[in-house]
Amino acid sequence: MTTEQDTTELAERVEEALRGDDVERAAEVIASLHPADRADLYERLDPELREAFFSVLSTEQMAELMEYLDEEVRGVVTARMTRVTLARVLDRTSNDVAVDVLRTLPPSDMARVLSAMSTAQEISPLLEHADESAGGLMTRGYVALHPEMTVQQAITFLRLRKPLADEAYYLYVLDASNRLQGVVNLRELILSEADTRIEDVMTKDPIAVDPNTDQEDCLRLFERYRLRALPVVDEQQVLRGIITFDDIMNVSRWEADEDIYEIVGLPAEESIFSPLSVSLRRRMPWLFLNLLAAAYGAAVVGVFEDTIAKAAALAVFMPIVAGQSGSSGIQTITLMVRGLASGDLERRHLRHALLKEVTTGLVKGLLFAVVVGGAALAWQGEWAWGPVVGLAMIGNMTFAGALGVIIPMTLRRMHLDPAVASGIVVTSFTDVMGFLLLLGMGTLLISELR
Amino acid sequence: MTTEQDTTELAERVEEALRGDDVERAAEVIASLHPADRADLYERLDPELREAFFSVLSTEQMAELMEYLDEEVRGVVTARMTRVTLARVLDRTSNDVAVDVLRTLPPSDMARVLSAMSTAQEISPLLEHADESAGGLMTRGYVALHPEMTVQQAITFLRLRKPLADEAYYLYVLDASNRLQGVVNLRELILSEADTRIEDVMTKDPIAVDPNTDQEDCLRLFERYRLRALPVVDEQQVLRGIITFDDIMNVSRWEADEDIYEIVGLPAEESIFSPLSVSLRRRMPWLFLNLLAAAYGAAVVGVFEDTIAKAAALAVFMPIVAGQSGSSGIQTITLMVRGLASGDLERRHLRHALLKEVTTGLVKGLLFAVVVGGAALAWQGEWAWGPVVGLAMIGNMTFAGALGVIIPMTLRRMHLDPAVASGIVVTSFTDVMGFLLLLGMGTLLISELR
Repeated sequence: MTTEQDTTELAERVEEALRGDDVERAAEVIASLHPADRADLYERLDPELREAFFSVLSTEQMAELMEYLDEEVRGVVTARMTRVTLARVLDRTSNDVAVDVLRTLPPSDMARVLSAMSTAQEISPLLEHADESAGGLMTRGYVALHPEMTVQQAITFLRLRKPLADEAYYLYVLDASNRLQGVVNLRELILSEADTRIEDVMTKDPIAVDPNTDQEDCLRLFERYRLRALPVVDEQQVLRGIITFDDIMNVSRWEADEDIYEIVGLPAEESIFSPLSVSLRRRMPWLFLNLLAAAYGAAVVGVFEDTIAKAAALAVFMPIVAGQSGSSGIQTITLMVRGLASGDLERRHLRHALLKEVTTGLVKGLLFAVVVGGAALAWQGEWAWGPVVGLAMIGNMTFAGALGVIIPMTLRRMHLDPAVASGIVVTSFTDVMGFLLLLGMGTLLISELR
Repeated sequence: MTTEQDTTELAERVEEALRGDDVERAAEVIASLHPADRADLYERLDPELREAFFSVLSTEQMAELMEYLDEEVRGVVTARMTRVTLARVLDRTSNDVAVDVLRTLPPSDMARVLSAMSTAQEISPLLEHADESAGGLMTRGYVALHPEMTVQQAITFLRLRKPLADEAYYLYVLDASNRLQGVVNLRELILSEADTRIEDVMTKDPIAVDPNTDQEDCLRLFERYRLRALPVVDEQQVLRGIITFDDIMNVSRWEADEDIYEIVGLPAEESIFSPLSVSLRRRMPWLFLNLLAAAYGAAVVGVFEDTIAKAAALAVFMPIVAGQSGSSGIQTITLMVRGLASGDLERRHLRHALLKEVTTGLVKGLLFAVVVGGAALAWQGEWAWGPVVGLAMIGNMTFAGALGVIIPMTLRRMHLDPAVASGIVVTSFTDVMGFLLLLGMGTLLISELR
């Protein structure tokens, strides 16, 4: 049983061997590690030891490493390999890793590496598809059977073909023109009589997608129908590739991160480990948008400068009225974004969602109005503090509920990602509305506030 | 090929048949649907039609429905079944669905249903484990082989045993005391010679977890080692169950939602469709915490009431200084929380992360200081506006970077979820710090501001 402690200890042994130039020993321990742990160890090493580590790997092991390395690190590694070595390594990786790596190369390099690859014919068609589509996710590594084969023939074929672990569970049944007829899995093969024909065992009309299907929709199909693989077919129903379970697990984490990151105004590629300059470039745009939005809020406050000078305690309630509604609005946004992502929530639910969130906002507003408005009244002593603070609270909380539904729904209707910086947008609006309500009513009732 | 349009059309046909009391036709269309689509259709129906829908289902189909229904809806359905029907249905569902349903019943009902189930012996031990642990996730439905069997014997055994689709890919090799010796998959079985012994084909010492392992750690193992199933063993290495791929897909979505929800102060079970009263109860605690935190911010502002009365324009910059840092802090929090969840980020990275985020905060602060401080100076005309607004911006942005790293790391060190309401906490702190810096410096330099 592999545990994390074991791995750390082995990692230290490899580091020691590499530092001591004990190549043989390092190679031995590295060989005993799971490729995932090898990749992890590599990522932790200092640059000079990475060099040494890499030099003890076989081409086979380099290919395995490619499968498990973080994309940023993989980019650095491939940039340092000769084009010929890279071609040999990519010949041994899974199709989708090869495609991902080739995509990151400058066009001229890509052509050179590709022409040196023996799997070039398999890979080139995959390069045409958008990265986040079914076509960009799929691999050509699948096993194809003929409908007229018997189960025994299929098993013999498998023994000759020796498929990789990744491609082996589902077998695709194609007609003479490579059109997808059905799918059969190893379990069904083993459980059937040897002379049964494949077409009598296979499941007909399996769920399939076309190459342009968005990866998020593919993920939804995997989850909804509990698939283990998803075939990709073109308009003629010709099988172009399959999406495997590993790829979709990555998509699952990626899409969740994308949502959560976009709500707060970050790109999905960002991480704590990104270089400082990259992080700054990535995070600044949304923070500048935020600043622009905050400037509107500030401008509203500026309009009421005289009122604030006369009743400075209004400034005390500004952050409370704005902040409560902002938090509440972000809660609604988050529910909407994740509901839309899982497919549970659709456009037809707009009215239901709006009613629900506006009512929730109203009820919360009433409650906070009593608490905060009451506190304002008790502190300042003049009656008008109660309604000024309380009504601003009620109005802004209700507004936040409506906005939290409308922003993601509108973005979705415009075929944009419903998450994009919606957290920043909603808090900016609730700031503006909060200040407007509080200071506006304060201005109307200024004579009653003192 | 199933498409969403198809499903919607079929759904309408079922609805029509049910409304017209055409039971036969409804049953026919329902039978042609994928169980996932059946569950979806059921969830969309009005209550009276749900009754009619349910009455045309076979016990087999009811069990399938249980597998795919949303947890809230499933609770309503099971509450309305007789205990005997429920027992018969749960005998036909997968172990983990049966366990989940039994858990939701009152203890006396649970005992009654369990005693009426023919699979009671298989299920009872599973009920002991915590819901979000490996023990709570695992199923007993796996195929066990003996190490001395030949490949041919194993295949014959499989034909007699006729395993379900879920349990069939990995076969577990156990010794006489049911201790896990290794694992072999169907592909390896098919590719091996008939007279090879299983112990010569199997992978020894497979990755396994104990029943108390947290489900998030199980998810990390699936992702890291690209597993399709994960065996659960006790201290004696006795196989207790396996976690399948379907279960872990659910965990994947759940854990991502939990993180994103907790950052904004929502429980992971919340959805737009939760009843109003439940939503209010769930969302209020954190909003009250938010209010409490905002009250601190307000109190800080209250201390500086005199300063604001003298230089009301300070109130204009309050939301900018606080808001920019709040957004920036939430960005850092989000990166930290997801980094910790994926396992990429560990405690040993604390110093690196802190340095990175503090520097990023400082650089962003300097930039915004120039923009906002410059605007303040240009607008108000007195020199002191530049440094007062600018320095508050720099200080608060740097503070936000540090806080964004420290809060999740501290929660993790206290063995709490690093996401818990961290968004609310960080914005509250940046509010307080922002007001303190801006109004504090404003007070010191008040004579220079006018």
